[in-house]
Amino acid sequence: MANVAMLGTGLIGLFYTMALSGKRSRDRVVVVQGRDAAKTEAFARKHGIPRFTTHLEEAVSAPDVDLVVVGLPNHLHHEAVLAAARAGKGVLCTKPLARTAAEAREMLDAVENAGVFHGYLEDLVYTPKTLKALQSVRAGTIGRVLWTRSREAHPGPHSSWFWTRELSGGGAIIDMGCHCVEIGRSFIGKTVRPVEAMCWGATQVHPIDAEDSAVGLVKYSDGAIAQFEVAWTFRGGMDLRDEVSGTDGTIFLNHWLRTGIEVFSAPGARGYVAEKAETESGWIFPVGDEVAALGYEAMFTDMLDSFETRREPVETFYDGYVVNAITDACYRSIESRRWEPVRLEVWRGSAETSATMELVAHDEQYWLIKREHMPDGRTKLILKDRRTGEVLQKVE
Amino acid sequence: MANVAMLGTGLIGLFYTMALSGKRSRDRVVVVQGRDAAKTEAFARKHGIPRFTTHLEEAVSAPDVDLVVVGLPNHLHHEAVLAAARAGKGVLCTKPLARTAAEAREMLDAVENAGVFHGYLEDLVYTPKTLKALQSVRAGTIGRVLWTRSREAHPGPHSSWFWTRELSGGGAIIDMGCHCVEIGRSFIGKTVRPVEAMCWGATQVHPIDAEDSAVGLVKYSDGAIAQFEVAWTFRGGMDLRDEVSGTDGTIFLNHWLRTGIEVFSAPGARGYVAEKAETESGWIFPVGDEVAALGYEAMFTDMLDSFETRREPVETFYDGYVVNAITDACYRSIESRRWEPVRLEVWRGSAETSATMELVAHDEQYWLIKREHMPDGRTKLILKDRRTGEVLQKVE
Amino acid sequence: MANVAMLGTGLIGLFYTMALSGKRSRDRVVVVQGRDAAKTEAFARKHGIPRFTTHLEEAVSAPDVDLVVVGLPNHLHHEAVLAAARAGKGVLCTKPLARTAAEAREMLDAVENAGVFHGYLEDLVYTPKTLKALQSVRAGTIGRVLWTRSREAHPGPHSSWFWTRELSGGGAIIDMGCHCVEIGRSFIGKTVRPVEAMCWGATQVHPIDAEDSAVGLVKYSDGAIAQFEVAWTFRGGMDLRDEVSGTDGTIFLNHWLRTGIEVFSAPGARGYVAEKAETESGWIFPVGDEVAALGYEAMFTDMLDSFETRREPVETFYDGYVVNAITDACYRSIESRRWEPVRLEVWRGSAETSATMELVAHDEQYWLIKREHMPDGRTKLILKDRRTGEVLQKVE
Amino acid sequence: MANVAMLGTGLIGLFYTMALSGKRSRDRVVVVQGRDAAKTEAFARKHGIPRFTTHLEEAVSAPDVDLVVVGLPNHLHHEAVLAAARAGKGVLCTKPLARTAAEAREMLDAVENAGVFHGYLEDLVYTPKTLKALQSVRAGTIGRVLWTRSREAHPGPHSSWFWTRELSGGGAIIDMGCHCVEIGRSFIGKTVRPVEAMCWGATQVHPIDAEDSAVGLVKYSDGAIAQFEVAWTFRGGMDLRDEVSGTDGTIFLNHWLRTGIEVFSAPGARGYVAEKAETESGWIFPVGDEVAALGYEAMFTDMLDSFETRREPVETFYDGYVVNAITDACYRSIESRRWEPVRLEVWRGSAETSATMELVAHDEQYWLIKREHMPDGRTKLILKDRRTGEVLQKVE
Repeated sequence: MANVAMLGTGLIGLFYTMALSGKRSRDRVVVVQGRDAAKTEAFARKHGIPRFTTHLEEAVSAPDVDLVVVGLPNHLHHEAVLAAARAGKGVLCTKPLARTAAEAREMLDAVENAGVFHGYLEDLVYTPKTLKALQSVRAGTIGRVLWTRSREAHPGPHSSWFWTRELSGGGAIIDMGCHCVEIGRSFIGKTVRPVEAMCWGATQVHPIDAEDSAVGLVKYSDGAIAQFEVAWTFRGGMDLRDEVSGTDGTIFLNHWLRTGIEVFSAPGARGYVAEKAETESGWIFPVGDEVAALGYEAMFTDMLDSFETRREPVETFYDGYVVNAITDACYRSIESRRWEPVRLEVWRGSAETSATMELVAHDEQYWLIKREHMPDGRTKLILKDRRTGEVLQKVE
Repeated sequence: MANVAMLGTGLIGLFYTMALSGKRSRDRVVVVQGRDAAKTEAFARKHGIPRFTTHLEEAVSAPDVDLVVVGLPNHLHHEAVLAAARAGKGVLCTKPLARTAAEAREMLDAVENAGVFHGYLEDLVYTPKTLKALQSVRAGTIGRVLWTRSREAHPGPHSSWFWTRELSGGGAIIDMGCHCVEIGRSFIGKTVRPVEAMCWGATQVHPIDAEDSAVGLVKYSDGAIAQFEVAWTFRGGMDLRDEVSGTDGTIFLNHWLRTGIEVFSAPGARGYVAEKAETESGWIFPVGDEVAALGYEAMFTDMLDSFETRREPVETFYDGYVVNAITDACYRSIESRRWEPVRLEVWRGSAETSATMELVAHDEQYWLIKREHMPDGRTKLILKDRRTGEVLQKVE
Repeated sequence: MANVAMLGTGLIGLFYTMALSGKRSRDRVVVVQGRDAAKTEAFARKHGIPRFTTHLEEAVSAPDVDLVVVGLPNHLHHEAVLAAARAGKGVLCTKPLARTAAEAREMLDAVENAGVFHGYLEDLVYTPKTLKALQSVRAGTIGRVLWTRSREAHPGPHSSWFWTRELSGGGAIIDMGCHCVEIGRSFIGKTVRPVEAMCWGATQVHPIDAEDSAVGLVKYSDGAIAQFEVAWTFRGGMDLRDEVSGTDGTIFLNHWLRTGIEVFSAPGARGYVAEKAETESGWIFPVGDEVAALGYEAMFTDMLDSFETRREPVETFYDGYVVNAITDACYRSIESRRWEPVRLEVWRGSAETSATMELVAHDEQYWLIKREHMPDGRTKLILKDRRTGEVLQKVE
Repeated sequence: MANVAMLGTGLIGLFYTMALSGKRSRDRVVVVQGRDAAKTEAFARKHGIPRFTTHLEEAVSAPDVDLVVVGLPNHLHHEAVLAAARAGKGVLCTKPLARTAAEAREMLDAVENAGVFHGYLEDLVYTPKTLKALQSVRAGTIGRVLWTRSREAHPGPHSSWFWTRELSGGGAIIDMGCHCVEIGRSFIGKTVRPVEAMCWGATQVHPIDAEDSAVGLVKYSDGAIAQFEVAWTFRGGMDLRDEVSGTDGTIFLNHWLRTGIEVFSAPGARGYVAEKAETESGWIFPVGDEVAALGYEAMFTDMLDSFETRREPVETFYDGYVVNAITDACYRSIESRRWEPVRLEVWRGSAETSATMELVAHDEQYWLIKREHMPDGRTKLILKDRRTGEVLQKVE
């Protein structure tokens, strides 16, 4: 059982508080902190939280608090985490860990030097579908992972600080790319080193300083590629999909639109349909249990179980730091217009490896390139001569 | 917090125990009862249950038990519920409540006379998608419900007692039709009286005495029709879908296959893919969080919260009794080959109403039948003369 | 090459004319007949048809016409077909062939006695997906067919005569049930005799005399069941789906909504989206090539190739007659509220057979009922003792 | 009516011959040319083609031929087209037009100097779904196009020459990227200039010299981005999907897997399921009419109608040349690891334009950035001060 100080009363603070009380009813939020006293008091009252405050230090250092949850805008993560570390409290920080790898590095050092529990609240790695798919990949269901695509796109975030570069640290990449990067990395394997990144980003629609659209490629030391696509310009709701290609198989994940509920409504749903939904009438696609579908439930169960049993959770501040190092490289690549190395001063994974290609023997003379059933019923083999390298075909 | 006696160690006992410990960690199973001592002991050990027994009475009457969960084969529900009522314990009973309405009636009387808490464990009414859809329907999103289709089909159940008519009380109808009937009834409205039923059932594939395939129609007093389809002959996994048609809209629900995870695996998943999955290689369709997707989580949260606060849960024994009355009518209809009345000695809904048709005015002379955009760009109106009844068309 | 007289200038005449000129450019419509001279002239001009007339006999008996296509309202089929037969011309008639089996029988006799070519324009049997699926079924892909579901539902037809019982012969059953009945029959096998039908039909929404909603079950001599669902009350576009369950597999067909084009449009598509689409903005689901998707192309190719080579097309007037006999039984069943025999004075299929059940041997003592992988990794067998009939389970 | 010389008897020659005879039955293939005399004779016999030859010049210059269809491996396109131009015959060339833009330029010059009809057989621009979607985009359904994604992935091609870099001109990019590039360009608008390209490509699985996997980004002068993904390493069949994002909407296209036919087969389909399908049992996803679904029908109708009426077809050799210029830039980018300009010596589109951003006014003081419905029922506005540039939020 944990006594929690919740920092932040925005959408993320709301989702976190709902998930915390929903999943493990033995944990309690004992104090909530927000900038606006009236709004914070209302939040506390609505969710049955005994105390509220506008002072971060006060919330963090309260004697009955043993775990601090940081649900604040990006530019306040650093200060909040350092305060929690100083107070010797466990700390969970929302995504992205920081605005840059340098900032993330300081936060990582702070919690590790203080010896406190730390968890990185990367919820999309914990969706029911992602967890199931990661389990499949680890069981060898699709062979070695070659390529991943992680996409998050919607019409833009709901709070003004997201849209202000100094506060958020960037645009769609820092906001959503951090999810996509960690999803790709989780499928490829966290011990495999991200080597370099190539990224396009542009401000296509909104009158802001940061990118509202970006596509990035992250190359890993085993030859795998993790592709991400983010946009604050997407129309039609929230597009939250992942694809994984392996030597022996494929996985498609869809977390949001058209995942089993399809509604046509002439008069309209009158009210909230689903996060980022744009329409309330005609064909609409609600989501059953949003908090579960977005991974909050499984994430907090992992975090709080880990906190109690003192084991490392799936996502730590170190992971948040690696993600920031990758998004840093992406932002540099947008400027330099070329591949940029991922700079990781601290690397805890395995030593560099390079891709190995498994050749499939056809017989003593040939490697098998592929086999295909043709429309006319024949089966064709594409073979490569082991000695000459010549490629030829044979009909079976 | 509830102290639970779990009766039954089969698949349903396993799912219930997992859901109970997963969702509300403050409830505890304090004793488990099963027929086979060794298996029951292993079950208790695996799930950290302090005591086990092969005696039903012993489990039910233990002083520290306040809630009995009946996860036994159908023919044992009656005895277990009566024992719980005698012991003055709250009781939750798995579906179907009984094999017949007569049996269900005795169980309903027993818990009501004893004044104990009772809940009917109709999990599919609680899936995240069904809950969301019910909420939509109640908010008027699709207008008045006209027709529902609830379908559950798979290659057949996993325990031998299901296949033995005397023990289960029937075949696919009693096993799965009970889900479908209550889903249809929930969409149409529980206060609307089921009037009559027409059903086809046959033994198409398996060498058994009961029906392995059935289609039924249940007519309600407001003119709505609830259609159900059940089969133990379906190939390809588990087909779990609902459709709802209303005057103003439509809902499609898919709870299982192809709901957002699609996997192709050449070597195969090696192991469990999803309940009733038939293949492990090629294209497979796992489910993210099965226990949540099947409604167990939301169901036990409702049951245990209701138990604690002494309010009525969504599904009570009375609902189980109504479902049995409908399946009874279905079995009679298979024999008589005609519509059969649903015999409800106890009816707690609203008095009979009949369907009312809302006419849409076009102008003072005509009712509007419909409006359609044609491929050539014109819009056509179909009108009915209010006085003469003549139907005519007009191009706008 | 065929010279065609097109009877009818409504939506069906339009689709037919487009399909005829689209697919086999060597056939020509040489004359078109309609009731309204101005509209018929405009139709002829738009589609480059040399002549037009308001006189049916004139169109049918023109010397250069060798094939008559009947695209008229239901109550005019009989007269048009008899005229074509008298004139010794080949004749293709739109669905349903007639309003009753008696009327259909006279039309069948007329063309057979005159010895003219005849084809029944049942387009939905010819959709690319249906053709592919029929081929699969015949190749044994899903084993013996046990159950089919064919559903056609939309908000109602586009011409006033459909809504007038005397002209159309009924409501949604005669309009769309005729498609569904022939689709089910095609999957089960045209030589298998339809034995009896049970049907529910009601007027749920529209102020008309005929049923706007119906569900029917047709039982075949081999034990298979063909279920159909039709509605003029459906909201959200056109729902055109089929399902086929066999002893060894399953087929799902979706012909219309969400078949690979998904569009979100904030401003709206401004104009025609797809047949029966109800919305033009938000999420919409167009169809690529509607004429092909609805089967018109493949149907006319078969009809005209058959006409040229004097072989029998896939769908003849005899098929239309069988369909009418089945819909007749459905209408009788709505009245009698029980199963009604399908009365076929002329039966050209195979003699009555009854369902045979193929038992699967487990070993010398047991039949295998089923095998299932359990969530805990075990495999369970359900067995039936060959001698005692007892059902038991074994874990492998 | 056209008399056609078909060059090539491989899979593409087969598909073309089927489409030519299927769609417009008045055109005829009068001669077929192939390298292998026996195979070519068999091909001619099977498809009812009067003559066959192994000599390209002989086929091309036959007096009764007026249109040459080039269905040969990539390295033979140049020679075949030049021969057709010399003979003064119209010529249709399969994709890619050439291996490089330089080669394409010579072919373009040859046909234009000879004044012969020329068409570029880019079939995927002609699929029923692409045609419908292009029409939507042009009608303004989704606003200004911002981003396109075109993906083609399968387990690798079926003939050995594809796998040999000197013959094909590259790997997955030249084979499939040419489709994706032209699809993206068609959605963005053919008059908009492609400016630069960035591409990753690698040999991840197969023992070949060329890339078997690639991702590319093509930037257009209006700020739009066309992303393509190609792989010969994909497992599970053929993945053929497009996505288009616009300022006002979104389009998703799926041309192949799971587009409305879903089959589960325990015994297996025994034979051909669909192009590049990898499995024949379990869940399989056939395609209704493959030739139509791949665009062959609409493509040849456009080509032959254009040929007859002497208008320009949708895809000409100039388009093929632009595609080659883009794939050239992609290959250079793989080497240089940076954005590379698209070198177009001949540009026939509009002069360079740059992206314009349409600002949406909220009131006189603010621009509207976005509006969102929150889970708690409120509506939030994100606004930008026109003067100070500050971003702020307001709850409506």
